Amino acid sequence: MRQAGRYLPEYREVRAKSDGFLDMCYSPQKAVEVTLQPIRRFGMDAAIIFSDILVVPHAMGMEVGFVTGEGPKLVPLSSKTDAESLKTDTGSFLSPVYEAIAKTRAELSPSTSLIGFSGAPWTLACYMFEGGGGGEFSKARQAIYAQPELFFGVMDRLVRAVSDHLILQVKAGADALQIFDSWSGLAPAGLHENLIYEPTRRIIREVKNTYPEIPVIGFPRGMGGSLGEYVNKTGVDGVGVDSFTSLFQARQDIPPQCVIQGNLDPLLLATDKEKTLRQAREILTLMEGRKFIFNLGHGIVPHTPVEHVAALSEMLRAESERACA
Amino acid sequence: MRQAGRYLPEYREVRAKSDGFLDMCYSPQKAVEVTLQPIRRFGMDAAIIFSDILVVPHAMGMEVGFVTGEGPKLVPLSSKTDAESLKTDTGSFLSPVYEAIAKTRAELSPSTSLIGFSGAPWTLACYMFEGGGGGEFSKARQAIYAQPELFFGVMDRLVRAVSDHLILQVKAGADALQIFDSWSGLAPAGLHENLIYEPTRRIIREVKNTYPEIPVIGFPRGMGGSLGEYVNKTGVDGVGVDSFTSLFQARQDIPPQCVIQGNLDPLLLATDKEKTLRQAREILTLMEGRKFIFNLGHGIVPHTPVEHVAALSEMLRAESERACA
Repeated sequence: MRQAGRYLPEYREVRAKSDGFLDMCYSPQKAVEVTLQPIRRFGMDAAIIFSDILVVPHAMGMEVGFVTGEGPKLVPLSSKTDAESLKTDTGSFLSPVYEAIAKTRAELSPSTSLIGFSGAPWTLACYMFEGGGGGEFSKARQAIYAQPELFFGVMDRLVRAVSDHLILQVKAGADALQIFDSWSGLAPAGLHENLIYEPTRRIIREVKNTYPEIPVIGFPRGMGGSLGEYVNKTGVDGVGVDSFTSLFQARQDIPPQCVIQGNLDPLLLATDKEKTLRQAREILTLMEGRKFIFNLGHGIVPHTPVEHVAALSEMLRAESERACA
Repeated sequence: MRQAGRYLPEYREVRAKSDGFLDMCYSPQKAVEVTLQPIRRFGMDAAIIFSDILVVPHAMGMEVGFVTGEGPKLVPLSSKTDAESLKTDTGSFLSPVYEAIAKTRAELSPSTSLIGFSGAPWTLACYMFEGGGGGEFSKARQAIYAQPELFFGVMDRLVRAVSDHLILQVKAGADALQIFDSWSGLAPAGLHENLIYEPTRRIIREVKNTYPEIPVIGFPRGMGGSLGEYVNKTGVDGVGVDSFTSLFQARQDIPPQCVIQGNLDPLLLATDKEKTLRQAREILTLMEGRKFIFNLGHGIVPHTPVEHVAALSEMLRAESERACA
């Protein structure tokens, strides 16, 4: 999950010198710097490249803006002409992301993994048809029924653009990939195959055609009742579990060869250090004997005290050393 | 789910003559009228009283307002003083709701059931700590960790107020009850017992202490992975399934003595009549042999064409007559 962010004073410094949020994503030097900041402070086992899921729609030709405190704004897709003007050849537009990955890889210690990522097609389509976030994406969900050809045409283009974006991130040096389907919980039940499983499966096949060994982690947020099905139908190597889902149940539902990642509530981390450490220990105990990556259930929130993250990282490092000793 | 609403011209007429949304909830004659409107047009088997889940916080003493297009606004709870000033004796404030129920019951045909309802404590607490809706209630979710005593004190008061509100609705003439936990999908996994199951179980016990025979339907929206657990731990007689959850899976998870209700996507109903009828038939086929109430997966949306609702109601009535013949 997102490690960089406003909770770090050194991030706020870079942010203050940038011309908006997207400028940070497209300035390799800034992206490298904020990617490395949490690793320098806390020494996590893996870094995740600083970027945003909306760089893909942006690269496809959509207008994307970030208004502080309001979240992303896009000019929503509505016509066939809009959809047909979407580019799928996004590699040169997104070259600053790949440059940032190459530079970050070069600066990171060899023992620290670097994770590249993308939004999943359904989640990106949500923003592209809605024109932003903040609600339950009813405009986007209605577009599935009202303009199915248009909608699924866009989904097809997204599969291609996302596949290329992930492949180019591995080419640049990413050691693992994560696919964020942040709004999969809002997909109508009868369309999970068309909206979630099939697009993700196609992307993973494309990526593994080029890089058979690259591990891919899926994050089907809000789909806690279907994690086993998600793993079996998409072919992910690992699955991120959100904070709304019981890890006990996830452990039962997810096949044992699949890595589980999760799921401390970022709001707990932001609030109560002692309870955070207690819950983190409970998570470790529960996941004994499983392939497991400790993580938050979602990205870190801006008002998180740095000291809480430090204490959690220290505890996890000590536990990890103890377990490997 | 909500049957009345802006999709009906006769509703818009009553709405135009009202001094805001809450005025309609507290004017028994208006509430009766808009409750009966969809029944007159479509002849559903059951009516649901026109009201709102936020009348309970309002009756407890919170300021509640509805801004058109923006949803509800409340002055959020933050201090112990705020919480301690919350009333639990809400019966006289809410007497217009009970009056509306009595009058509606008198006007409805004996063969049409009347459903009373309330929000569940967790969902009401979400609005009360957040100050409104529209997002993912992070202020409210953080209050669980930051001010646990305050938060669970409010939950306790809500259990009492909701229990009373439901009991008084049955006393006034409601034939069944529904408990809407619209945001249960956002409850942290480790706290499902404290936030969802236990408060709902206590309410149902209270209600059944007075009215042992009253059927209670729960609606744990967004908890598709835990429906069996929800039923077993709360004691509901029926469970509403949202449109994000596969009815096939719900059928497997929900114990057979429990009635299943759901789950046509209201956005499909608003968009495509033919596909609506096809999906409704699929739902009926899937639920053969189960205790089942056909319903939408959530409330009807404002831009739904009246003709779609008419066609769906007709089809369901014909199927029901065929099945009972």
